[in-house]
Amino acid sequence: MTDVRIAGVGMTPFGRHTERTGRDLFAEATARAFTDAGVSREAVEEVFFGNFMGEFAETQGHQGPLAAEMAGVQAPATRLDSACASSGAAVRYGVERIRAGADVVLVGGAERMNNLSTAGTTEALAAAADALWEVRAGLTFPGAYSLMANRYFERFGGDREDLAHISVKNHANAVENDLAQYQHTLTVEEVLNATTISSPFGLYDCSPISDGASAAVLVSESFAAAHNLDAPVRITGTGQGSDTFALQDRESMVRTPAAERAGDAAFAEAGIGPDDVDIAEVHDCFTVAEVLALEALGFYDPGEAIGAARRGETTVDGRLPVNLSGGLKAKGHPVGATGCAQISELTKLLRGDHVNSDVVPDAEVGITHNAGGTVASCVVHVLEVDG
Amino acid sequence: MTDVRIAGVGMTPFGRHTERTGRDLFAEATARAFTDAGVSREAVEEVFFGNFMGEFAETQGHQGPLAAEMAGVQAPATRLDSACASSGAAVRYGVERIRAGADVVLVGGAERMNNLSTAGTTEALAAAADALWEVRAGLTFPGAYSLMANRYFERFGGDREDLAHISVKNHANAVENDLAQYQHTLTVEEVLNATTISSPFGLYDCSPISDGASAAVLVSESFAAAHNLDAPVRITGTGQGSDTFALQDRESMVRTPAAERAGDAAFAEAGIGPDDVDIAEVHDCFTVAEVLALEALGFYDPGEAIGAARRGETTVDGRLPVNLSGGLKAKGHPVGATGCAQISELTKLLRGDHVNSDVVPDAEVGITHNAGGTVASCVVHVLEVDG
Repeated sequence: MTDVRIAGVGMTPFGRHTERTGRDLFAEATARAFTDAGVSREAVEEVFFGNFMGEFAETQGHQGPLAAEMAGVQAPATRLDSACASSGAAVRYGVERIRAGADVVLVGGAERMNNLSTAGTTEALAAAADALWEVRAGLTFPGAYSLMANRYFERFGGDREDLAHISVKNHANAVENDLAQYQHTLTVEEVLNATTISSPFGLYDCSPISDGASAAVLVSESFAAAHNLDAPVRITGTGQGSDTFALQDRESMVRTPAAERAGDAAFAEAGIGPDDVDIAEVHDCFTVAEVLALEALGFYDPGEAIGAARRGETTVDGRLPVNLSGGLKAKGHPVGATGCAQISELTKLLRGDHVNSDVVPDAEVGITHNAGGTVASCVVHVLEVDG
Repeated sequence: MTDVRIAGVGMTPFGRHTERTGRDLFAEATARAFTDAGVSREAVEEVFFGNFMGEFAETQGHQGPLAAEMAGVQAPATRLDSACASSGAAVRYGVERIRAGADVVLVGGAERMNNLSTAGTTEALAAAADALWEVRAGLTFPGAYSLMANRYFERFGGDREDLAHISVKNHANAVENDLAQYQHTLTVEEVLNATTISSPFGLYDCSPISDGASAAVLVSESFAAAHNLDAPVRITGTGQGSDTFALQDRESMVRTPAAERAGDAAFAEAGIGPDDVDIAEVHDCFTVAEVLALEALGFYDPGEAIGAARRGETTVDGRLPVNLSGGLKAKGHPVGATGCAQISELTKLLRGDHVNSDVVPDAEVGITHNAGGTVASCVVHVLEVDG
């Protein structure tokens, strides 16, 4: 099985881009990725594009060929939707496409969310849940994840202050990241005193509504060698998992088997385990989601990750810095762009050219965890940098 | 490169299923496919599911894990959207996934269209065109394809009666196909005298609004051998192409380069050419689309396919029977299900267990052509049956 190398990555700044279209944002992200890669657009053999709510936000489906055109690429192009894991899936199938024989694949995603009303965005996001058995009963995502958080507290202990430390950590990580939507710190008190969204979550337990795009140019090992590319980061493992679509059909509300399956598969392909990982970018759409991610990936036993940020284990100087990019919470969460943005940020962290690379100078192995819905789908990638 | 075998196929009848959901339709199609395949659901390693307008019709996105659950499968699952070529793309990435090392992949698609108003469905379908530069100007798909038809007439000649023969042929093919939405014949006069939809198209130049689902179980050559499967049909070539998203950006309105690229790629992989093909299922969303498809695939020079049905070359006893299933026109066109339905019908035609197999007893090579939008995307597959 050929190794897959990341030749280049690019993102727009995440935030409010109400004056711009999704296609325009993707054009910017891909321009940055091609410049970073030093690979010609003509070399691209396939495009995988993640987008979740284009039908609602821009009345636009069929975005594969549109994305290719915006990237200046002439190649087969398909839009993938796996809710908030859409561009994680795009990365995965880019990897598979190279393993099946391609040399150069463009992957990425874009989302425009701020041009809808807040209610409109909430309704559009709810299309990632079960329209028949969840949404009609009134469940939206803040509600679904707060059910998971409350059940976690009941089952294992922990409290709102534990969760607040996750938000504080991720905001602190984003302060110098120009691509992040929020570049300001928060205190535990500010998080605890924020307006309640859905108990136990206050405003600062929730990732924001964001516009943005991300892209990566993936190449085969032989193409990288033949073109003498400076592409030190390899994707050594890809995993994806599914679970029951609706939360009520799960055996447990505090386990995420889709993420466990994705993690197991990615670790198995890479031939490593949790202990070998130096840094992680995980899907903290709500603070509790970071807890569930760290347990699903095997970094903590069930019930043990709740205090990780509070204990300083996942902060910049902890044993496993998590979401050094700022995470979804502070970097922003334009849903279809998030999975590939994790790849973009992690690649730069491992290469040493991220603003936060200096806090992890010896990091050689990283992992991304990108979840769809209430983790009905999840995509995990293991990245390793040449020593 | 491993050959990919079609272990089993299944479809719901296409038509009006207003009392059923898309998920329910997909459950039926997959149940039929697994029965046909004789393969256990537990063996499935990945699911690719095509759906185009679920956000509009059922307020449901993120349908990959939902589709897997409906199929009774526990595996990574992703929804692909390439407009009316969505499940063609699902088949393609199933093929690629097996080439990348998997043994069993489930592919398919579903669409529910009749639960929207006709205006609502027309608007939802328009999301396959350019929301900024086509749809806002009032262009919908009957309008777009009629522009292509009128330009074709202007450039090459031909008339409405030529197109009418395509509709008459495809309806005649569907008369005994229990899966088809319409099992009645039409006369040329009936087609010509039908209500005008968008000149030159009357009602019978247009494929209908349909509900339905399709599925196929794809397996590796080695899995088929190890399990002694009765799976004589192989997918020997897959090709996909893109073009400018908006019609006005094309060099020509009477050429479909995305289909030419897809066809060239699929033929190259299979190591054959148009002269080797015995039967074809092509994307006749409007009558003129069948003409453009036959020219793009190299069966006819530009300007020559317009009279093919009228001359009897593409009818049951012609040199290249086209759309023996009834095509989109008579079999129906639940958009996200169409591409895999072509695979399902063609597989049965080649195996000899389709109601129309008796008209092509010696057919060994077939091709499918599945287009998205105004052929901004296109997927082509070459299928061959063991001698």
